[in-house]
Order: sequence, then C-alpha cells, then structure tokens
Amino acid sequence: MKTAESTKTYTELADAAREFYRRGWVFGTSGNFSMLASREPIRITITASGLDKGRLDDTSFLEIDADSNILAGSGKPSAETQIHQTIYRRLPNVGSVLHTHSVWGTLLSEDRGAIEIEGYEMLKGLAGVTTHEHTERVPVIENTQDYTALSKDIETLLADTSIHGFYLRRHGLYTWGETVAEARRHVEIFEFLFEVLGRSSGRPDSP
Amino acid sequence: MKTAESTKTYTELADAAREFYRRGWVFGTSGNFSMLASREPIRITITASGLDKGRLDDTSFLEIDADSNILAGSGKPSAETQIHQTIYRRLPNVGSVLHTHSVWGTLLSEDRGAIEIEGYEMLKGLAGVTTHEHTERVPVIENTQDYTALSKDIETLLADTSIHGFYLRRHGLYTWGETVAEARRHVEIFEFLFEVLGRSSGRPDSP
Amino acid sequence: MKTAESTKTYTELADAAREFYRRGWVFGTSGNFSMLASREPIRITITASGLDKGRLDDTSFLEIDADSNILAGSGKPSAETQIHQTIYRRLPNVGSVLHTHSVWGTLLSEDRGAIEIEGYEMLKGLAGVTTHEHTERVPVIENTQDYTALSKDIETLLADTSIHGFYLRRHGLYTWGETVAEARRHVEIFEFLFEVLGRSSGRPDSP
Amino acid sequence: MKTAESTKTYTELADAAREFYRRGWVFGTSGNFSMLASREPIRITITASGLDKGRLDDTSFLEIDADSNILAGSGKPSAETQIHQTIYRRLPNVGSVLHTHSVWGTLLSEDRGAIEIEGYEMLKGLAGVTTHEHTERVPVIENTQDYTALSKDIETLLADTSIHGFYLRRHGLYTWGETVAEARRHVEIFEFLFEVLGRSSGRPDSP
Repeated sequence: MKTAESTKTYTELADAAREFYRRGWVFGTSGNFSMLASREPIRITITASGLDKGRLDDTSFLEIDADSNILAGSGKPSAETQIHQTIYRRLPNVGSVLHTHSVWGTLLSEDRGAIEIEGYEMLKGLAGVTTHEHTERVPVIENTQDYTALSKDIETLLADTSIHGFYLRRHGLYTWGETVAEARRHVEIFEFLFEVLGRSSGRPDSP
Repeated sequence: MKTAESTKTYTELADAAREFYRRGWVFGTSGNFSMLASREPIRITITASGLDKGRLDDTSFLEIDADSNILAGSGKPSAETQIHQTIYRRLPNVGSVLHTHSVWGTLLSEDRGAIEIEGYEMLKGLAGVTTHEHTERVPVIENTQDYTALSKDIETLLADTSIHGFYLRRHGLYTWGETVAEARRHVEIFEFLFEVLGRSSGRPDSP
Repeated sequence: MKTAESTKTYTELADAAREFYRRGWVFGTSGNFSMLASREPIRITITASGLDKGRLDDTSFLEIDADSNILAGSGKPSAETQIHQTIYRRLPNVGSVLHTHSVWGTLLSEDRGAIEIEGYEMLKGLAGVTTHEHTERVPVIENTQDYTALSKDIETLLADTSIHGFYLRRHGLYTWGETVAEARRHVEIFEFLFEVLGRSSGRPDSP
Repeated sequence: MKTAESTKTYTELADAAREFYRRGWVFGTSGNFSMLASREPIRITITASGLDKGRLDDTSFLEIDADSNILAGSGKPSAETQIHQTIYRRLPNVGSVLHTHSVWGTLLSEDRGAIEIEGYEMLKGLAGVTTHEHTERVPVIENTQDYTALSKDIETLLADTSIHGFYLRRHGLYTWGETVAEARRHVEIFEFLFEVLGRSSGRPDSP
C-alpha cells in the first residue's frame, strides 16, 4: 500500500488535518478526510475511525472499495464513510472530500435552512466562481445518527451541482474538490466566510 | 523513576500541556495535569506546583501516593492535588485528570449552577455518548481556597457518574478519562462547546 | 534569476506570507505580495496567480516589467498585478506592496466610505506618524472584477499621499512600504487596529 | 557583553517576545522588554528601538546605565526607556519590565480610570495574591508623547505598591516582576483577565 503515490496522498491529507486541528476545526476525534485512489473501480483512501485528527500519520488511513470493504490498512472506517461514498459516486469529478467541525459553522447552522453568502471576493476561491457578484448557498441538513437515511438525502441534494458543500446542523461541514488542495482551499474559504457572516449577524445593526 | 513507561507518561502529559498553553487554556502557572501510575496502591504522576505549563519536561512531574507523600521527583504538589486524589479514589476507571482555565469556560461559569450543552454532534467526543441527542451537564461549584472542604463537595458530586467534568466558578475545568488521550479529548470537546455556547448567548437573538 | 539578492527577496516575501496565513489573513489562494527589483526600468517580483499563500517558495514568484511581461519565473501574474503596477508607478518611494484578506477588515469595509482610525498609539507603527494624536483614513473602494477601471480609480486616490493603504470593499487591504519589512509592519498595524475598531463597534455602548 | 549570563537573559526576553508576537500582543515594532543586569549601579538590558518584536536575537538588546547611556550593543534605546528606568528606580525588587499592546487591553482602556478585576482564580498568578477574593486595580494613565512628564506621573502612581501593572490609555500594558519569568507570567495573567472582562462587558446582560 505504501507506493510513492499513496504516501503523497497521506501526506497531503495529514498536512490538511494538522492545519485544521491547529485552527480548532477538528477537535478531539471529529472530522474525517478522504481521497479517491482510483475511480474505476472506486477505491478511497480515508481516515480510520476514532483517531485524533491533529496527529495523523501513514498508519491512520484505510483503503476501501465502493462497498467500504477494507483493502489495506488497519482500524475500521468511520460511520460517516457512507457520506464520502455518496459524494464520490454522485459527483464524477470529485477527487477529495473533507469534513470539519468549527465553532462559526456550528453557530450559523443552528436555525437556517441554508447558509447564504453573497458579495465577497473570497467566494472566488470556490472552483468555477469568477466574480464576487455570486451567491453561494450551503444547504443545512438535519443531523442524524442514521447515516444510511442521511446518505439518501445527500444523494438528492447533490442533484444541485452548483453547490460546493453542505452543512449537517450543529455538526459540521462537508466540502470537496478535484484534488486534496482544492478541497482544502474550499474548507478555508468557507470557514473564513462563516466567521465573517457569524460576526456580522452578532452585531447590533444586523438585520 | 525514569523507566520507559513513566517517560511515555510525561511525554503525553507535557504534549497536552504544551498544546493547551498554545491555545491559551493554561496561562501563567494555571492548570495541572496528572495520570495514574498504579491503582493498587494508588500512585499518581502529577505536575509540581508553580510551573509554567507551556514548558514542562520530565523534571516537572512528581510521583505521589494516596496521601500525597512524594515518592519521586522534586518540588511540591499543588494545593489542588486533593481534587485529583478525590477523582481517582471515587472513579475507579479514571486513568488521567486534566485541569485547565479558559476564557470561554470562565465566562460561562459566572452565573450558572451548571453548564448544560445539548444537541451538538461534538458531544459524541465524550466517552460513552453515542448520539448528538444528549444533554451534558457540567456542574458549576463555588470556588474556594479551602481545598479540603472543596474535595468533600466534589466527592458528593461524583456520585453522579454520568458527568464527564465539573467547573469551579470563575476558575477552571476539571475533566478526566481512562487514558491521557481520552482526558485530553474531553478538554478539547468541552472547550469547543463552551465557545459555541458562549458565542450563542452573546447574540442579540439569544434567549 | 536566483542571485543572492533575489533569494533574499523571496525569503522575506514568503516569510511574510507564511505568517499572514498562520493568522488567517490570506486563506486559500487569496492575497498577493510583491517587491520592486529595480525602479529604472521598473521590474517587480510578484507572486504567481493561484498559489496557496501559506506555502510559497522561490518557485512561487515571477519577475515582470512595467507592462507585466514575464522576465523570469513560471506561471502567470494575478489579475490584480495591475494594482501593484499602479502603486509602484504612482508612489516613487514604495519598494513593496502587500495585499491581504482578513475577517475584521472585511467586516469594517461593509458599509463605510473610509475606515477612520484615531487616537491609538499603534498608529505610530505607520511610516511618518509620530504621535497617537493622528487620524488615519483608509479609503474604501468599491470592489469590481474590472481591474483596468479599478487601477484608474486607485491612481486618482493615490494623489492623497497621506494614506498608507486602501481597502477594496468586502475584498481586502492594499498597503505598502519602502521595504518588505515596512509593508509587513503596515499590514500588522492595520489588522490590529481593524480588530480594535471592529470589536468596539460591536459593543452595546458604541455610537 | 556576551557572557553566559547575559546570553541567558537575551534568550528569556527574546522567547517572551516571540510568544507575545505569536499571540498578537506586540505587532509591528510595538512593545519593549527589559531586565536588570545590575542594581548597584543600575544597568539595564533593553530592546533597541524600532525592531520587530517577533524576531529578536542577541543583537537586538542594549545595555544602558541609569541615565540611559549605552554601555554595550548597537542601536538606540526607545523613547519609552524612561518608563522602564522609573519602574526600576522606584521598585527595588523589580528585575524585569515588560510592555505589550493587545486588542482587549486597548479596548478596556478606552474609557475607564482603572481596570478593576475581582473574583477570578487567575488573579493568583500575580505575585503575592493568594486568593481569588482579591480586587486588582490596573490604573489607566492618559497616553502622551511627553515621556518625561509621563515618567513623573508614573513615579507618583508607583507609591501604591499593591499594583502589578498600569495601562497607558489606547496604548498598552506595563507590568513587571522579580524575574523575566514572573513578569512574563503577569503579562499572561493580565491578558487572560482583560479578555474575560472585555467579552463580559460586550454581552447584552452586562451592567
């Protein structure tokens, strides 16, 4: 399993995880990170369940097939692996899926059906967005421990291919990209904009 | 005292302390950290009093018995050692106790009898919690410099084995776990949720 | 291109970028950084477009002439290169231009024609300011994707030589200095004061 | 000048400065740091003027006498050196003086005659304070560029030997200790408590 290519993958995912941990976006064992190792057939490199996300190394990842059978690595896949599978299956260009838990995202997800972000230059960091005159809609889905039902809802949701991520209420962000670097950029862009939105709506003159 | 095993302990406790210091949760000489070296008879590895918690090394720890007599190491145990003793004595599965001081925790402890946290996925980072549909109650105890009286109150409090920590008002958090890693995870989970709760209650539309 | 002198330049710009990334001021691929390599004729060392600003090295920079033709390096200049050109052309003493995106700056730029900062000692960190009894005016310009038009507006704006920077609304800060160190100091001073101002205006007793 | 002892001093001061910079308490060239090299006669090791405080090394310090004549090192003493001199002269047990600029301190100093802090365990981090049932008063002095006049005001202020620091309005904190470690601890304690106080007073239910 430790070919030069897979090691590179681990390094990129582990670097992203370490940085997210430093920023307080994957405290405890929260969050999980994956990358597509092959599309035909689907093979996914994904963090094993229950690990501290700030201290991942090349023993922290599993390689699984489309049914989440373990092909390499030790440990077991997280219950949320189904969500990663759904995203890879539904979106043919996605090469990496990242899931984080942040304070500002959690706060924004409390009572909205979607987090809408409009008019910021930073939106141009999302793939395909070329102007700040853009409205990004991050759907908020009810959180549940029934990941099978949840995956079906997400499958439906992904019919809207304009979105770059979704939020599980009071839980966390799922975002993705063609590469780990693009997915990581999307996490950063969303977290920046969540903080801007969160601090705006806390001000006395906010609507 | 420097067997391979005890060195491992020091390293884990010192790593946690360094990370907590970086995040601003153990400024100055605040906080203290311990781990059970043996249960029969009780032997505890604990930070010596008065040290800067961001710069601990293997000379920063004492080994003490159930009466806080020093078995190894130099320096003296902190006055709060009694609280650690009480927790180890009362909770037979606890292997590590961590005590931190954070801004958000301090703020939340100002005027509540307990900090109640409900409905967040992050709660699943607490040992034994398997769903976000959980209410975690962190009792808030009046702060005092009489640690003997305080230890008795804590002894009573610990009859409720559903809790994962308690807060000394305007002082700091005590939490624990079977291992240092679990206790550290509990600190991170509580701090995340304290910030979420603190930022929520500061908002104009909060109840 | 890798003379000892140009390497020094890269290092200073890359160090500044890394530090700004750590602070959350250049998330994703946002921000860009430049330094004057020569004034007669104008030659500018500038970050290539689309790079992650937290991980720049000496392959991340281009050398361009006054018409933005590439003289050395690979990649293409960012669309915002025109703004850098305008600043160097218009202000004969400027040796470095830095552009960042921060949460507090973004918030302050929402609905003001200018960000006015007055009475703080920290203002003395701006070149030529010798007392806290100073009012610094940071003009806020409407954001646009038409960088040619924008550059003309900026050219007009720079007739006021008392300013040390300007803000593109909901986008980011442009500031400059005789050296990279001075420009970097200006970023830090502005970010500090933006946070002070942002936190002040969010308080119930603010005007 | 580079004896083993003086190198130790530089290292401690430079470490403190680097950590304060990381936390955003000495942005730009703000702040200055000193330590008593000898009391009879007075010799002070102090940061030279105009340096970036996050990147100090052993060339960044001057040794001066009681009249601020330079005995060793290059560069010139900061204008605020007089304040350090006053503190060392007036308080015979002080071995180190640290001056920082933080967002929360700046905000609290806006409109108070003194910052009063009461009832927090963290107060015990201040030398001589043994209980949380303590009121610490941090006098706020008007900021001025006339450091000679200011030093006289500070001389008067220091007649109250119960204080551990004072604040120049909209400028920054001065605190001290018998050693660099104690002075550094005081900075951390004050900054923690300033943030607690600042976040409390911003809340809708604050008095």
